[in-house]
Amino acid sequence: MATTQNTDVSADTNGNSENYDHLVQSADPEHPANLIPEMCRKFYNWGWVTGTGGGTSIRRGEHIFIAPSGVQKELIQSHNLFVLQYPTPKYPPSARKYIRKPLDLKPSACTPLFLAAFDRGAGCCIHTHSQWAVLVTLLVERELGKEGYFEISNIEQIKGIPRGKGKGYLDYHDTLKIPIIENTPYEEDLTEGLEKAMDANPDAYAVLVRRHGIYVWGETPAKAKTQCESLDYLFQLAVEMHKLGLPWDINRK
Amino acid sequence: MATTQNTDVSADTNGNSENYDHLVQSADPEHPANLIPEMCRKFYNWGWVTGTGGGTSIRRGEHIFIAPSGVQKELIQSHNLFVLQYPTPKYPPSARKYIRKPLDLKPSACTPLFLAAFDRGAGCCIHTHSQWAVLVTLLVERELGKEGYFEISNIEQIKGIPRGKGKGYLDYHDTLKIPIIENTPYEEDLTEGLEKAMDANPDAYAVLVRRHGIYVWGETPAKAKTQCESLDYLFQLAVEMHKLGLPWDINRK
Amino acid sequence: MATTQNTDVSADTNGNSENYDHLVQSADPEHPANLIPEMCRKFYNWGWVTGTGGGTSIRRGEHIFIAPSGVQKELIQSHNLFVLQYPTPKYPPSARKYIRKPLDLKPSACTPLFLAAFDRGAGCCIHTHSQWAVLVTLLVERELGKEGYFEISNIEQIKGIPRGKGKGYLDYHDTLKIPIIENTPYEEDLTEGLEKAMDANPDAYAVLVRRHGIYVWGETPAKAKTQCESLDYLFQLAVEMHKLGLPWDINRK
Amino acid sequence: MATTQNTDVSADTNGNSENYDHLVQSADPEHPANLIPEMCRKFYNWGWVTGTGGGTSIRRGEHIFIAPSGVQKELIQSHNLFVLQYPTPKYPPSARKYIRKPLDLKPSACTPLFLAAFDRGAGCCIHTHSQWAVLVTLLVERELGKEGYFEISNIEQIKGIPRGKGKGYLDYHDTLKIPIIENTPYEEDLTEGLEKAMDANPDAYAVLVRRHGIYVWGETPAKAKTQCESLDYLFQLAVEMHKLGLPWDINRK
Repeated sequence: MATTQNTDVSADTNGNSENYDHLVQSADPEHPANLIPEMCRKFYNWGWVTGTGGGTSIRRGEHIFIAPSGVQKELIQSHNLFVLQYPTPKYPPSARKYIRKPLDLKPSACTPLFLAAFDRGAGCCIHTHSQWAVLVTLLVERELGKEGYFEISNIEQIKGIPRGKGKGYLDYHDTLKIPIIENTPYEEDLTEGLEKAMDANPDAYAVLVRRHGIYVWGETPAKAKTQCESLDYLFQLAVEMHKLGLPWDINRK
Repeated sequence: MATTQNTDVSADTNGNSENYDHLVQSADPEHPANLIPEMCRKFYNWGWVTGTGGGTSIRRGEHIFIAPSGVQKELIQSHNLFVLQYPTPKYPPSARKYIRKPLDLKPSACTPLFLAAFDRGAGCCIHTHSQWAVLVTLLVERELGKEGYFEISNIEQIKGIPRGKGKGYLDYHDTLKIPIIENTPYEEDLTEGLEKAMDANPDAYAVLVRRHGIYVWGETPAKAKTQCESLDYLFQLAVEMHKLGLPWDINRK
Repeated sequence: MATTQNTDVSADTNGNSENYDHLVQSADPEHPANLIPEMCRKFYNWGWVTGTGGGTSIRRGEHIFIAPSGVQKELIQSHNLFVLQYPTPKYPPSARKYIRKPLDLKPSACTPLFLAAFDRGAGCCIHTHSQWAVLVTLLVERELGKEGYFEISNIEQIKGIPRGKGKGYLDYHDTLKIPIIENTPYEEDLTEGLEKAMDANPDAYAVLVRRHGIYVWGETPAKAKTQCESLDYLFQLAVEMHKLGLPWDINRK
Repeated sequence: MATTQNTDVSADTNGNSENYDHLVQSADPEHPANLIPEMCRKFYNWGWVTGTGGGTSIRRGEHIFIAPSGVQKELIQSHNLFVLQYPTPKYPPSARKYIRKPLDLKPSACTPLFLAAFDRGAGCCIHTHSQWAVLVTLLVERELGKEGYFEISNIEQIKGIPRGKGKGYLDYHDTLKIPIIENTPYEEDLTEGLEKAMDANPDAYAVLVRRHGIYVWGETPAKAKTQCESLDYLFQLAVEMHKLGLPWDINRK
């Protein structure tokens, strides 16, 4: 419920004392400074980010905009956002630094996970604690044990998920496979597992985290959001199918 | 998240270079250019068209207004709509042409399916990916196999569905029968199955698509929308009844 | 989606040609002309009156305000309301007449049922097609057969329901009993069953209708609405309890 | 639906006849007079306080602001709030007195329960009738009998709950334990049980009430609200896990 607009740029190792508020001021509704608050309000209403859970980040050129940690997601305002300088993937990680840090807020623990997606070409990355996502990770664990995949086929909404970069979208008869990684006590420690899953599944646009939620990314904010919606639709449908004794993947046999 | 208002009318084989933006500008809230965005926002909130799924189309005289493909349905604005010239059913399909095509958007793959409804007298056609619709198609398939019907009786809400053109509405004791067709990899390929089901069930105002969703139409936008709501109510109720071991159609025995 | 403000008072057997629009024009948010549209919007969002189902009526002195039949409940506006002259219960029914009838709309088929509640002192009566209400009528029917009651006890929310006129509210350990009547093909034919149930259960503020929904009334609009909310909460809880094998009424044994 | 702004300060034993309306007038959205109505609207939309159930209270210095009893929670306005003088925990309870009492409203029966939380350092206390909270108390009762705890572990959202004052937040592998007390016929009679549970579980920030709901408190309004959201998320997840046969606490064996 922070309302102060003070920003601390002391993390800027260049000693740059400039005020970076202009980075989060725009009349364009498509600007990340406006889009992140609007998206977070919708995610709150779907129950994905209640209790300060989850997070959202958008890349715009060399700037990464990130929702802060531990705040009420439906109340985020533009001036609450962190901005990270992110020259391009070819620069070393040391070139990355916060150029806007609201003094009264903490940066998101999801930041290294968002960067893992940006390093692989994403323009937006969304993290939710969706209950449907958590439930499918539990159902898969009981059936298949650790390190499995959530798999579903022959449901129209699968067509909302890309087949991989530049490969178009999945077909109706394809099996959608979402990797599941094990949760860790600290969010930032998920990075290794997430990057490993990303590298092992270079065509994936999402990774489920057991007993935790999901990371979804896309080339644009609109793609990340709609892919997140399509996946959540499929997870909820899968839980209901399980209750009704209906198999998820009729390609399997 | 397209905001440009540019339109491409190059599809107009008459070489007509007129700007057709006036077709989607109206102060009347009942005008299709205003009604489609408002309806899509509601459908999004019911979870029927998340992830860019689903679509809506309204006929007004010789003009068909259609929501574009692949966009966030809750964000559609009037200037995003396609307009198709649709002289009357007696003209050959070749007389149909887009007279307004937003340059940055794709026409809906549902278009031939919407036209199938307009050819049979509809004034509005709605396509949703409702999870309840998908689940009832799966439950019917398991019990009855392919090409069945969803049937339910003795539920008050059935009275919200017409018995057929000019025949009034179903009675409480009637059995509501909604045909189910098989899904196809490409949405446009559903047209044949949909038209076949429409012709075999001339009194139906809706066709379920297995593992996909539903097409609902009506004489007016209000009728199509409220029939869609009544059917979705019945599908959700039917899924809950199944979980509780309650039969859908007590007329059957 | 009617927007015309024309009213037909030809039903006024006094030949009174006065325009009665002033009856539905008020700046007071508590006036029935403003309260009914606001309440209907909320009921729509709870899923109680989708597909034009359900209805709401408020008595204010000698005037009964009634939402019209067959319209989208979330879009009702003040000028869509019917107004019935209702001198007092001691006058014969012939003294009742519409003094405001929107020309383009049909009066609600629930009207005689609403009047049954007003005849017994209600100030507001609400009719919903709540799926939870329908499901509990089905569960009771399977267990107990026709003409039973929905009974639940030892749930805090029971305390939101009055024990009867001037008798305060139910206690936590009491058993709430809601009569269930059988549905009829025509809504108005429910009147006899509803009145019989009202007279047999003079302390009841609600009657469930099998496979249909519920009628709830109260001394004021606020009481009717909050009692309707409390009952719906209990019905949804009861359905979930049934799924989990938890008994509704621990007073029974 | 009370709109009068009259306040009765006759309870002020000092004979102070001052008008205390200024206590509930502020342009600051973070002021309790604005925050309580906003929070109650959200709680209504989550289904936590329908039917006038539940309540919310915020402490600001020596003033306790409390939502009134028996009103529609989504309609509460600043001028409907009660204000209690609350010098500090070291003063005797006799030092506590209402300094603002809206004449047309009743003080909340939850008041002594809210004070129990404020006496232990809380800045805000929330009471909901969440159905998920009620259902987990019933499931625990069936398995473990009276006076048990709700326990869950290895779910990420657990990390939204503090480990105790000044002890940080729970870890992912910890078991969250929420005490459950038995319900009583009168809300105020819960005070003894609640205080006993608070003293026996000094690190708890919430107590479940069997067949009734939950009391959640926190150091600030934002913490109380987000902890309430996290707990409700966990209760809903736990009910769904139970339906799917998934154990809540894998630390147990």
